[in-house]
Amino acid sequence: MSQFHWQHITSPTVLIDSSRGKRNIRMMQDKAIDAAVQLRPHFKTHQSVDIGRWFRDAGTHAIAVSSVRMAQQFERAGWRDIMLAIPLNPRELSAINRLAGDCTLTLTIEHEDALQTIARLNHEIKVVVEVDAGYGRTGIDWQQGRRISELANAALQLRQVQQVGLMLHAGNSYQAEGDEGIAKIHQQSLQRLATVRQQIAAPAAQQLFVSAGDTPTCSRMQSFPGVDEIRPGNYVFYDLQQQHIGACNWDQLALTIACPVIARYPERGEVVIHGGAVHLSKDYLLSKDRYEGRPCYGQVMQMSDHGWHGQPVEGAFVHGLSQEHGKVRMPKAMIEQTRLGDLLVIAPAHSCLTMAAMQDFVSIAGQR
Amino acid sequence: MSQFHWQHITSPTVLIDSSRGKRNIRMMQDKAIDAAVQLRPHFKTHQSVDIGRWFRDAGTHAIAVSSVRMAQQFERAGWRDIMLAIPLNPRELSAINRLAGDCTLTLTIEHEDALQTIARLNHEIKVVVEVDAGYGRTGIDWQQGRRISELANAALQLRQVQQVGLMLHAGNSYQAEGDEGIAKIHQQSLQRLATVRQQIAAPAAQQLFVSAGDTPTCSRMQSFPGVDEIRPGNYVFYDLQQQHIGACNWDQLALTIACPVIARYPERGEVVIHGGAVHLSKDYLLSKDRYEGRPCYGQVMQMSDHGWHGQPVEGAFVHGLSQEHGKVRMPKAMIEQTRLGDLLVIAPAHSCLTMAAMQDFVSIAGQR
Repeated sequence: MSQFHWQHITSPTVLIDSSRGKRNIRMMQDKAIDAAVQLRPHFKTHQSVDIGRWFRDAGTHAIAVSSVRMAQQFERAGWRDIMLAIPLNPRELSAINRLAGDCTLTLTIEHEDALQTIARLNHEIKVVVEVDAGYGRTGIDWQQGRRISELANAALQLRQVQQVGLMLHAGNSYQAEGDEGIAKIHQQSLQRLATVRQQIAAPAAQQLFVSAGDTPTCSRMQSFPGVDEIRPGNYVFYDLQQQHIGACNWDQLALTIACPVIARYPERGEVVIHGGAVHLSKDYLLSKDRYEGRPCYGQVMQMSDHGWHGQPVEGAFVHGLSQEHGKVRMPKAMIEQTRLGDLLVIAPAHSCLTMAAMQDFVSIAGQR
Repeated sequence: MSQFHWQHITSPTVLIDSSRGKRNIRMMQDKAIDAAVQLRPHFKTHQSVDIGRWFRDAGTHAIAVSSVRMAQQFERAGWRDIMLAIPLNPRELSAINRLAGDCTLTLTIEHEDALQTIARLNHEIKVVVEVDAGYGRTGIDWQQGRRISELANAALQLRQVQQVGLMLHAGNSYQAEGDEGIAKIHQQSLQRLATVRQQIAAPAAQQLFVSAGDTPTCSRMQSFPGVDEIRPGNYVFYDLQQQHIGACNWDQLALTIACPVIARYPERGEVVIHGGAVHLSKDYLLSKDRYEGRPCYGQVMQMSDHGWHGQPVEGAFVHGLSQEHGKVRMPKAMIEQTRLGDLLVIAPAHSCLTMAAMQDFVSIAGQR
């Protein structure tokens, strides 16, 4: 890898601090070992074969993804234990069949109709039944324990199905604030999962494994009773939303985007950057206390020679985006010192979407 | 082009109705001819060399883009008159210099400091000074006529600068509703531009050209007094936001995204599709009257054998997105008829961002 120089950055560029990213990876690996759970990181966050290697070097062998395309990408890169953590799409039968022949594939289902698709596969797979423990996106409602049991057992009767499990994504933890809020979601989810588990009949009950995970609870909680594997993803980079939730501290943010200043408006208290919705994504953070009640798409960070410090620049944040332009609130004194072409280093509200939008990055070794 | 079949669509796929897109292109071309202005379509909407050809076939030779990367892409595809319609980024000097050697390049500036960058080019260019007539994104405030005049004349003194002009993007038209609202923004912008123009001193005044454009005003207004060229972009596809503004009717929407249903919840009045923020983008439409007060990321359209009809399915819209999942409100009767793997055809809130996110599409010939 060539030495990083600010002068090589000419247009919006994702910067990944490999020291911080690898530290985040090790932290979660250690957590999983201490809690005696398997770690199956969700690779939708980075979608990068190169960053995938950082996980492999840290001992990861099982991953989750949320599209067949990602599964194919990582299967080609040599990953051999892949969970497709999104409800099965019958239209992708033939691609799934090929994947199932090439790796240990776990499919997510949450409806009886999905069994018809599984019955048409030529290879063995594992199946998880998704349980909705309160998030309200996908999965069978946790109060329908009998239906979950019937589906798990029906799946197990198919010759293609080696093993069945339960799968949970407590995405409602993204609405939490602080450890107390995260713990509340965590306990509620695990309690509901336990309630479901009690209702699972044999033979599925005998060999049921449980996969759960979301970055806030996996980052802040220490034990995962009743869970066999955790499946967080965002923690490799973290982002502004996670910092706001309390899932990470500023020093753990491993992904930013460097954007050139293209216009200055001291009278408006703003600069405009080349850096818009196609770079940062339009996901935002709303905070009661910060950002003047505006949506915050990104936080300007303090730059260092080799990347950025762990601290934000107070009062400097992206509050408006069009396709290629970003409007940045900024203290007047800072605007006065800013010149056209200067770079701002911005921590995005949602790093997964920034990475998905950019699909490329510069790896920096971080602060020395 | 091979025949389009629904069964070939297995995952989220952008569909472009070439009949509607080409009709939209011709409509704007005719409008420009009638209004005696040049048309310089903004190619940020599609960023596609193939769709660029539709414009060339309709007689377009001048285009606008909003990044150096796009300028390079279209220069390689043979376009020879390109406006970089975003304030000049000094960091991209060498790439801009190469472009200026290869095509007729127009650069946008809105600050005196940009002249230092232009002075370092080895090739001739044109320059437009961006005027802010009320949108509040980039450009010099229209009330600073003297400063605009001084900048235009200073630019003209540089040996690199062949010609100077004024450039305006009245993006505030996106806040308008209906022809009356659009007309108000249009008249205000043109009046303010006229005020600026009166203050431009010689020699810039003698050869000043004026470029203006945004899809709502260019779609609905018939005359553009004081304007030499119009620069709309979105009109090739239109989208839900434009329909809401009144810039187009349903039958003009030329871009949708087909997404498979992966989960059904009759009890919640919802289905979930594979189709999330990385496909639709998180841009949304807020409407006082429609969508139950929720953000609408996309509207489900009535399907036909060969694409979609011009009409939306009432009460069926995307109200929530995560990275790969989309939550779709839907009338109960329709959910009952929907099976896993069925496709929904969705008109996105903002077609430019959907196209930028997907970067690929299936062209369909449309309704027969």
